[in-house]
Amino acid sequence: MKNIIPSVKGTRDFYPREMSIRTWLYNKMRQVSESFGYQEYEGPLLENIDLYAAKSGEELVKEQSFVFPDRSDNLITLRPELTPTLMRMVAQRQGQLHFPLRWWSYGPFWRYERPQKGRSREFFQWNIDLIGEASPEADAEIVAVMASFYKATGLMPEDVNILVNNRRLMDEELNELGLTSEQRPEAFRLIDRRDKLAPEAWRDYALDLGLSPEQFDRLLALLENLELWKESDELVRFFEAIDALGVSEYVRYDPQIVRGLDYYTGIVYEGRASTPKIRRALAGGGRYDNLLADVGGNPLPGTGYAMGDVVITLLLEETGNLPKELDISPAPVLVTVFDEESLLASYKLTADLREAGLKVACYPVPAKLGKQFKYADRIGARVALVIGPDEKAQGQVTIKNLLNRDQFSVPEREVSQHIREILAGGKPS
Amino acid sequence: MKNIIPSVKGTRDFYPREMSIRTWLYNKMRQVSESFGYQEYEGPLLENIDLYAAKSGEELVKEQSFVFPDRSDNLITLRPELTPTLMRMVAQRQGQLHFPLRWWSYGPFWRYERPQKGRSREFFQWNIDLIGEASPEADAEIVAVMASFYKATGLMPEDVNILVNNRRLMDEELNELGLTSEQRPEAFRLIDRRDKLAPEAWRDYALDLGLSPEQFDRLLALLENLELWKESDELVRFFEAIDALGVSEYVRYDPQIVRGLDYYTGIVYEGRASTPKIRRALAGGGRYDNLLADVGGNPLPGTGYAMGDVVITLLLEETGNLPKELDISPAPVLVTVFDEESLLASYKLTADLREAGLKVACYPVPAKLGKQFKYADRIGARVALVIGPDEKAQGQVTIKNLLNRDQFSVPEREVSQHIREILAGGKPS
Repeated sequence: MKNIIPSVKGTRDFYPREMSIRTWLYNKMRQVSESFGYQEYEGPLLENIDLYAAKSGEELVKEQSFVFPDRSDNLITLRPELTPTLMRMVAQRQGQLHFPLRWWSYGPFWRYERPQKGRSREFFQWNIDLIGEASPEADAEIVAVMASFYKATGLMPEDVNILVNNRRLMDEELNELGLTSEQRPEAFRLIDRRDKLAPEAWRDYALDLGLSPEQFDRLLALLENLELWKESDELVRFFEAIDALGVSEYVRYDPQIVRGLDYYTGIVYEGRASTPKIRRALAGGGRYDNLLADVGGNPLPGTGYAMGDVVITLLLEETGNLPKELDISPAPVLVTVFDEESLLASYKLTADLREAGLKVACYPVPAKLGKQFKYADRIGARVALVIGPDEKAQGQVTIKNLLNRDQFSVPEREVSQHIREILAGGKPS
Repeated sequence: MKNIIPSVKGTRDFYPREMSIRTWLYNKMRQVSESFGYQEYEGPLLENIDLYAAKSGEELVKEQSFVFPDRSDNLITLRPELTPTLMRMVAQRQGQLHFPLRWWSYGPFWRYERPQKGRSREFFQWNIDLIGEASPEADAEIVAVMASFYKATGLMPEDVNILVNNRRLMDEELNELGLTSEQRPEAFRLIDRRDKLAPEAWRDYALDLGLSPEQFDRLLALLENLELWKESDELVRFFEAIDALGVSEYVRYDPQIVRGLDYYTGIVYEGRASTPKIRRALAGGGRYDNLLADVGGNPLPGTGYAMGDVVITLLLEETGNLPKELDISPAPVLVTVFDEESLLASYKLTADLREAGLKVACYPVPAKLGKQFKYADRIGARVALVIGPDEKAQGQVTIKNLLNRDQFSVPEREVSQHIREILAGGKPS
């Protein structure tokens, strides 16, 4: 066999089995989003680089994005995230939209990172945002959506947690600690990277940033203070709303959560698996009250998160919450082709059964019945039909129940009824 | 207002209304594909250029594709079509898959063409293929899927036709006409472009290709011969199968259909709108029996088509077959927030109603009830709920029917039942 041309590194093929998991996940996102009254939208997959340049943060745009010139030398980006696109779309129709706006989306994104477990260069992301409301209760609603999704996929509070903090609170705390307003954005990046660096390297990073050893110790203490949220009126209200929304078991305060993107302005949140096997965040987001004005709209607050498909699928696999046997049989009914003469009769039967609402595949050419039954088993069909010369002479069709291998003939007009009875009898065990 | 950063030329924004049409179309494709026993799959959106270089045809790869070098200087292509990816995926698992294979897919593609009505640079395409069967009946099944899709979207045989020809037949005819085997691929391109050029320009193209005036006249006669199919045993069998499959009203022979891609080897087909307002093909495909071997697999025949989303949507709009009022209301129920004190009670009520299976949005902050009712009307909600101090004292909730403006109070535990009754009462007229 010749060499097969390889796929692009960091991309994935979705064979029917993988595709059915992707569709299952998408449907869960749809179900939860819609239960909270969110509408589906989608942006283009390509955007001009200027859209990200301002606000997404240098690392994401310059180091992690696929960027290329088009034939007019505009720099085009394979979108690395959706929030800037959302802001553009809202700004374009700001006068016609009804706020608060609740929108969700699920689509492909790209980041030029080293592919590894839990990370691919081409991935899918669920985005959900509430725009036009600055209250901490709005943040609580969005976090409740995330918790409800975990619940809907069978993940328990012992499997997954949503960690919450407030950038405004942290900003004040860093100020009290003596960090200048110039030092603070970099300090957020420092805090964000604590999990990713060894303790010594992280300390060096902090001292490089200009922290004194004493400031460093106070920062460490700050990041261990689980009661810090009580000093933030916003977080107090946030947790009250989380309680009212019935998801407090999934949500807790963590002073170390600040998120990496530059545009967050208030409450931030991150979904985390409990198992040490999965260290990457499951989802992350926060409040971005200046972003709409930054892309050219009138100022309007917003809050929302993104959840990639790769890490959550790993976790659901790990916890055994992926559906064990997804129904990926292409069709429950296979019509066989007995011989050359009966080919068209078989085709006609498939058309009639489809008309009656059944999913039906037809073996496309005459072949030995044994071979066709074997094929029916392999694709997971539960019923096979035969119209040979005997059946044709009597206006009948033979029905073979592939589960118990029962076989009987019925008049053609009764076939769909009998099939429905067999299919209602339950799935193969 | 500042300038909003523009979107990339030839891309589209899907606001909730456009998104709901896209989802409706996707669901129709799913329904029809599944009724014929096809399984959903999807490939990566990026592929190495080598995958297309061999077989898709020079125009598509060199002139119409977005191609860029990655950071290791590999040439990456934003996929312009799916068939080569399908071939790669089948070749990779050829030993494990069960043939005949019936697969379908719906996803984004890119072509660097001048954006115009019916054409965008970023578009969606439905691909459906039957692999592992060389019979003309297999082609007929695929064409029946296309016809069933038109039927499922309400398009009648007077709105749309599937035109069919056979490249093998045309190859023989061109041979008889005296064209060498070197001239014939270019002659297919000539035939394919007849619709796109003025008669004089097309004649010049033919003579440039080396046709004598006499050969040109015979070619013209050939392309008018609607009985030509009777000389092809494959097409005779094809049309018999189309008849058995019950879709012959949608399908007819046209000697001018040859399709543009180089890899077709037999029967080819194209969906065409009857209205002269839409001149671009709705869908196109054909048999490609050498492609799997070309990408490195063992030889296996295949047949299938692609249908873009842009032209079909234009036609459905033109014929009035797009659903008139898609249900794009984010939620049928809005819970209002009477005042600061009742905010958490309102949030708790939304959580309870979602738990009961309803789609519920909550106004996120206290505001005048009139403003909140107006918002409920604007988002298309049909019921608004109020819990003020009076309701709270009595353990009740006030239900406002937004269709007839009726208003009444019920005990909290009965709310979901009353909402269901109102929602069952029909949609707003």
